[in-house]
Amino acid sequence: MSSTAGQVIKCKAAVAWEAGKPLVIEEVEVAPPQTNEVRVKILFTALCHSDGQTPLFPRIFGHEAGGIVESVGEGVTELKPGDHVLPIFTGECKECRHCKSEESNLCDLLRINTDRGVMLNDGKTRFTKNGQPIYHFLGTSTFSEYTVIHVGCLALINPAAPLDKVCVLSCGISTGLGASLNVAKPKKGQSVAVFGLGAVGLAACEGARIAGASRIIGVDLNPDPKKFGVTEFVNPKDHDKPVQQVIADMTDGGVDRAVECTGSVQAMISAFECVHDGWGVAVLVGVPNKEDAFKTHPLNFLSERTLKGTFFGNFKPRTDIPGVVEKYMNKELEVEKFITHSVPFSEINKSFDLMLQGKSIRCIMAMDA
Amino acid sequence: MSSTAGQVIKCKAAVAWEAGKPLVIEEVEVAPPQTNEVRVKILFTALCHSDGQTPLFPRIFGHEAGGIVESVGEGVTELKPGDHVLPIFTGECKECRHCKSEESNLCDLLRINTDRGVMLNDGKTRFTKNGQPIYHFLGTSTFSEYTVIHVGCLALINPAAPLDKVCVLSCGISTGLGASLNVAKPKKGQSVAVFGLGAVGLAACEGARIAGASRIIGVDLNPDPKKFGVTEFVNPKDHDKPVQQVIADMTDGGVDRAVECTGSVQAMISAFECVHDGWGVAVLVGVPNKEDAFKTHPLNFLSERTLKGTFFGNFKPRTDIPGVVEKYMNKELEVEKFITHSVPFSEINKSFDLMLQGKSIRCIMAMDA
Ligand SMILES: NC(=O)c1ccc[n+]([C@@H]2O[C@H](COP(=O)([O-])OP(=O)(O)OC[C@H]3O[C@@H](n4cnc5c(N)ncnc54)[C@H](O)[C@@H]3O)[C@@H](O)[C@H]2O)c1
Ligand SMILES: NC(=O)c1ccc[n+]([C@@H]2O[C@H](COP(=O)([O-])OP(=O)(O)OC[C@H]3O[C@@H](n4cnc5c(N)ncnc54)[C@H](O)[C@@H]3O)[C@@H](O)[C@H]2O)c1
Ligand SMILES: [Zn+2]
Ligand SMILES: [Zn+2]
Ligand SMILES: [Zn+2]
Ligand SMILES: [Zn+2]
Repeated sequence: MSSTAGQVIKCKAAVAWEAGKPLVIEEVEVAPPQTNEVRVKILFTALCHSDGQTPLFPRIFGHEAGGIVESVGEGVTELKPGDHVLPIFTGECKECRHCKSEESNLCDLLRINTDRGVMLNDGKTRFTKNGQPIYHFLGTSTFSEYTVIHVGCLALINPAAPLDKVCVLSCGISTGLGASLNVAKPKKGQSVAVFGLGAVGLAACEGARIAGASRIIGVDLNPDPKKFGVTEFVNPKDHDKPVQQVIADMTDGGVDRAVECTGSVQAMISAFECVHDGWGVAVLVGVPNKEDAFKTHPLNFLSERTLKGTFFGNFKPRTDIPGVVEKYMNKELEVEKFITHSVPFSEINKSFDLMLQGKSIRCIMAMDA
Repeated sequence: MSSTAGQVIKCKAAVAWEAGKPLVIEEVEVAPPQTNEVRVKILFTALCHSDGQTPLFPRIFGHEAGGIVESVGEGVTELKPGDHVLPIFTGECKECRHCKSEESNLCDLLRINTDRGVMLNDGKTRFTKNGQPIYHFLGTSTFSEYTVIHVGCLALINPAAPLDKVCVLSCGISTGLGASLNVAKPKKGQSVAVFGLGAVGLAACEGARIAGASRIIGVDLNPDPKKFGVTEFVNPKDHDKPVQQVIADMTDGGVDRAVECTGSVQAMISAFECVHDGWGVAVLVGVPNKEDAFKTHPLNFLSERTLKGTFFGNFKPRTDIPGVVEKYMNKELEVEKFITHSVPFSEINKSFDLMLQGKSIRCIMAMDA
């Protein structure tokens, strides 16, 4: 056990005190882990659009990161101090119907919960600032040098993997990658359309590349997005016809697979309607608005198209993410191209600006810098 | 070759002269088969709701039948006089992208076409009455003692199979059976909801039974439909809650699979929304109206539900239907329970009445009776 085990740790964290305000680097207290909990020293964290969307304050955001186990609570047998881990915003209890199903990663106990700001064990926070509780976010709160996480939300990874690279596999990159590899599953030589070329969509392109797709058609409303991995680019604004028709015309009736990574319901409909009849599969990844409705003619289904949705690329966090890290170690998966920026943790607000201005795909922050 | 090969055959057929009028048994002339065509002596025919929906007159309906090859046209090598065949309303050319794909049965050349009333080879009919052409229907026109069919629309079956039974495997029964066995694919012990308990839905229940489903929940607006094979029955009219909610409550969150066999877009939506998150699969079979829209919240997909449609149960007519007949011969598949009535061919209008009044599932007509 480390010398800090069982003790409250004082460390730096970026605290969100109010909606829409910059984060403030503060010294906070991090309590020891309780039953089924693990305290993790975060070495590198990135951020994505989900960070900051919350009705609960004060809060510590952050969910894409890599770290090392500092100490473990009662009942934790799968992890020990020194283990390298990726925190994951959705968990795997290994006990529930979903965890026992081969197909689902929507764990009943640890499924993503954006509203909960406390730990499951006692309904309290492990973070305080001068005695005032500070809420957790997605069960991960990686914008802190130390954080406490349920053991079911930690993937144990190869200690040889560089944490400043593989930390981005915690969320968006795995989401897009898995949407292609696990759900759309293009066969070698098939064509794939990817709607939305943000981090998630670019990772879907990377998944299509790994699967051996012959054509990867990127679709984005932004006239000049990042396009690595894309073999052709279509901007719906450049055409009078609906984009599904443009794609059908380019591909003799439709692509074999489509992956939607935008959150726009119009793109979801286009992604479905641009797949070929007989065998086409479309996969929805983007998170829609509450009032959106997906609408299409049922004949589009009857002509043998399939529509599926996925969450976190259908990866089971503990079971599957270590294997994604191995894909990187084997040089099957490229990760560096997604990392466009790095800033010290103390300049975290700059990292948010880069993301919100669309300049970065992923910006890595070293906690000790 | 039979003595009639190459000759015009005069025989009895039920002709539809006008919309909405009873069929008239007439003596018609049936020309010899041309290139890639086969002339078949029909022994037994049944009928389904598709018979009679047409803008084209005069016409000979009929597409569920069993017969024996009388003679073959040029280029036909796979069939010879005496072979037992089932005519199929949609074909398989074995050459196009769809036929070459493992997943699709939507043959580019021979895909169902309700409007075409002529043969592909010369754009003409093989039926005449005193020189007046009589149009074909679905390429099969089985309401005739002899008919001419494209070789791609004939399944060569085991000659030991009783044609008065297996003739019903030409259309609706195979459609529902395949929707369960080939597309919904319930695993042993899983639960299946079937919407619509007509012939197609009852065949979907039979498919679920063969697959080893533990619960087969039949759903129909008719308070007392045929229900063989169903383990539980739900009438949406008996509940204040939407039927998808009723089913979710019965099954701890949703059924594993749902198969829609109604043609009602509301049932399509309910069938999709009643499957379990994480792994649920819903399959659409019913033919909707032109102006229908399938509408649901995209989050229902993101929580890892799959929606697919199928045509003819994803069976390839020539490749797969002989195997369905074998399932019957092996006693894996029950067919007798679908055959509720039989009438002589001369009383074909009675057979229509039985169907339209909802009294029959399938009514068999012997051509020589
Ligand atoms: N980022 C994650 O970690 C993560 C994880 C799971 C799911 N998601 C969801 O996936 C989606 C994509 O995430 P991201 O981080 O890549 O977002 P992003 O905002 O960086 O990228 C989205 C891209 O889609 C494009 N776009 C928007 N509407 C479009 C349309 N109608 N047609 C074509 N392109 C369109 C935008 O121009 C943008 O380039 C979001 O809905 C997000 O909630 C994200
Ligand atoms: N019959 C065929 O050969 C065949 C082949 C392929 C496809 N289809 C399509 O499959 C569908 C079913 O065919 P069928 O021959 O069994 O039809 P059918 O009319 O005999 O049976 C349909 C059943 O659905 C029920 N129903 C209607 N609306 C419903 C609702 N909202 N909720 C629950 N039940 C509802 C009806 O009461 C009826 O019992 C049709 O749309 C048909 O076009 C049929
Ligand atoms: Zn679980
Ligand atoms: Zn994220
Ligand atoms: Zn039919
Ligand atoms: Zn074909």
